[in-house]
Amino acid sequence: MRAAVMGAGSWGTVFAKILADAGTPVTVWARRAEVADAINASHRNPDYFPDIELPGLVSATADPAEALRGADLVVLSVPSQTLRGNLAAWAEHLEPVATLLSLMKGIELGTTERMTEVIAEVTGAHQSRIAVLSGPNLAREIAEEQPTASVVACIDHGRAVDVQKAVTTSYFRPYTNTDVVGCELGGAVKNVIALAYGMAAGMGMGDNTKATIITRGLAETTRLGMRLGADPTTFAGLAGLGDLVATCSSPLSRNHTFGEQLGLGATLEEAARVTKQTAEGVKSCRSITDLARKVGVEMPICDAVERVCHEGLDPRAAVAELMGRETKPEIDSLRSDDAQ
Amino acid sequence: MRAAVMGAGSWGTVFAKILADAGTPVTVWARRAEVADAINASHRNPDYFPDIELPGLVSATADPAEALRGADLVVLSVPSQTLRGNLAAWAEHLEPVATLLSLMKGIELGTTERMTEVIAEVTGAHQSRIAVLSGPNLAREIAEEQPTASVVACIDHGRAVDVQKAVTTSYFRPYTNTDVVGCELGGAVKNVIALAYGMAAGMGMGDNTKATIITRGLAETTRLGMRLGADPTTFAGLAGLGDLVATCSSPLSRNHTFGEQLGLGATLEEAARVTKQTAEGVKSCRSITDLARKVGVEMPICDAVERVCHEGLDPRAAVAELMGRETKPEIDSLRSDDAQ
Repeated sequence: MRAAVMGAGSWGTVFAKILADAGTPVTVWARRAEVADAINASHRNPDYFPDIELPGLVSATADPAEALRGADLVVLSVPSQTLRGNLAAWAEHLEPVATLLSLMKGIELGTTERMTEVIAEVTGAHQSRIAVLSGPNLAREIAEEQPTASVVACIDHGRAVDVQKAVTTSYFRPYTNTDVVGCELGGAVKNVIALAYGMAAGMGMGDNTKATIITRGLAETTRLGMRLGADPTTFAGLAGLGDLVATCSSPLSRNHTFGEQLGLGATLEEAARVTKQTAEGVKSCRSITDLARKVGVEMPICDAVERVCHEGLDPRAAVAELMGRETKPEIDSLRSDDAQ
Repeated sequence: MRAAVMGAGSWGTVFAKILADAGTPVTVWARRAEVADAINASHRNPDYFPDIELPGLVSATADPAEALRGADLVVLSVPSQTLRGNLAAWAEHLEPVATLLSLMKGIELGTTERMTEVIAEVTGAHQSRIAVLSGPNLAREIAEEQPTASVVACIDHGRAVDVQKAVTTSYFRPYTNTDVVGCELGGAVKNVIALAYGMAAGMGMGDNTKATIITRGLAETTRLGMRLGADPTTFAGLAGLGDLVATCSSPLSRNHTFGEQLGLGATLEEAARVTKQTAEGVKSCRSITDLARKVGVEMPICDAVERVCHEGLDPRAAVAELMGRETKPEIDSLRSDDAQ
């Protein structure tokens, strides 16, 4: 197997290292030629993890056609909202039976499509060729080879096993799953919940409150997933609970940090300055709440985050409202227990 | 309604404050007369939270008969392994229709009984009179009136609602549930998982690993619960996931701190010196693994903690084993997905 990693951001770069460490030769496509040149010359990505040496099986190019030529496994790792445009330009270079693996965690604005839906639509590939990788996977920790588990989901179990084999190393252990929808939604919604968690942290709320946000956040994610045909047990696993807890807990998470800045009183612009770029959840809270409304599922935490990020709601008012009386019917939300 | 809180530890003391703030007069039973006298004289518990003033509706006594006289709600908050002995001495003083509410989170050594089973056995009370309160409820944060949610479980829904009314304040919001077994197991097992989490933290493991321990820990708790008739959705709620995340995350948790000390290389004795007393999970890991074996459920994390605490296994070997190949069939444990 030969792989192409399309995108030289932090996760794409580390994923190329995983592939190479698993014995899979990989070409990284970088948007900027100087990044590709630097990777080829120094075996490091100067933008992300310049202290981490990339294995010899990693090469790089700024030419997508070159990266995709002969690649059986195409790993897509670009910002969610740029996928459609990028992929349209790349489609003609894809090998006809290549597996398309999404590392992206977002919902497309406007269409409210999941990334695998965008991939199917733009490339015409059957869903059995499209896979997702998701889990408690903070890139920095994997770069340092800390033991990490993950999930590869594909409706074609055999293809998930092929991907699993191509990315299993001593420090990175992927498990297979056939619930693509659940894995994908878990990854997308967790960024929004991490913003809420970060806000609460920034406001000095304690661990009781923060644990409640995680619990309610996973419950509303599960509700959305079940409505869209996902298996609820996926959300109790690594791609649901695991990813959510890792993202909320980690000072390395941009969504956490962005939310924390808002909780400390920063404006959206000030928060974005601290995290260098806008956190993914700031965009996806809008597409996720659109999707939830479309299918008739209540998501009070995502709603509150959306109103903070796009309608000027004060984070203090948002967290107070979430912890207050108004949310009571939602709290034990997977069953109809009574709240006073 | 009048309440008795049997036990003046940290949670019992704070729970008396909640009751009084909710308008319920409450008498606290303290084992030592000087603690009862201090609470009556200064409205503070000198041993726990001496900075927190207790409301006027809180009084104290060292005489259990006096505390229990006329109490419609009897809140039990003594160390789990002392419940049977204490309750045997108190039983004759209980009002015949009083609700018996357990705040305790443990499984009895030897019998492997849950606390509500011990209560039913010793007092002869029907299960419809016995309730449990559990959730992400770090006592220190509630003492400071940080917003906190919780769960009151009783097979008699009406009785759960009565308890709920007696303990609802602006900062403490209990929800009702009829799944006593699930709520009770969630609370008991989380102490053991928090020990494992603490060990990983002490060894410098990152958030990916720690999130995986929470995810797998909740999965093995859910497996045990389902085998014992609990509703799996309880474990996704505040008394399962919520309590687990709060306990694992918090530097205030004795189980977390104890595990962390072990992870840093301390002996059991040294760790106990740091946390002042032995963490609850050190005792309950033994009764929980006994229970799991009895009903034929695999609980690899609890097993590993039990071997560290009672059989001299090195915490490093335990965590390495949990993150390694041997655990693979368990990871996606609520469904039979394949691991390589």
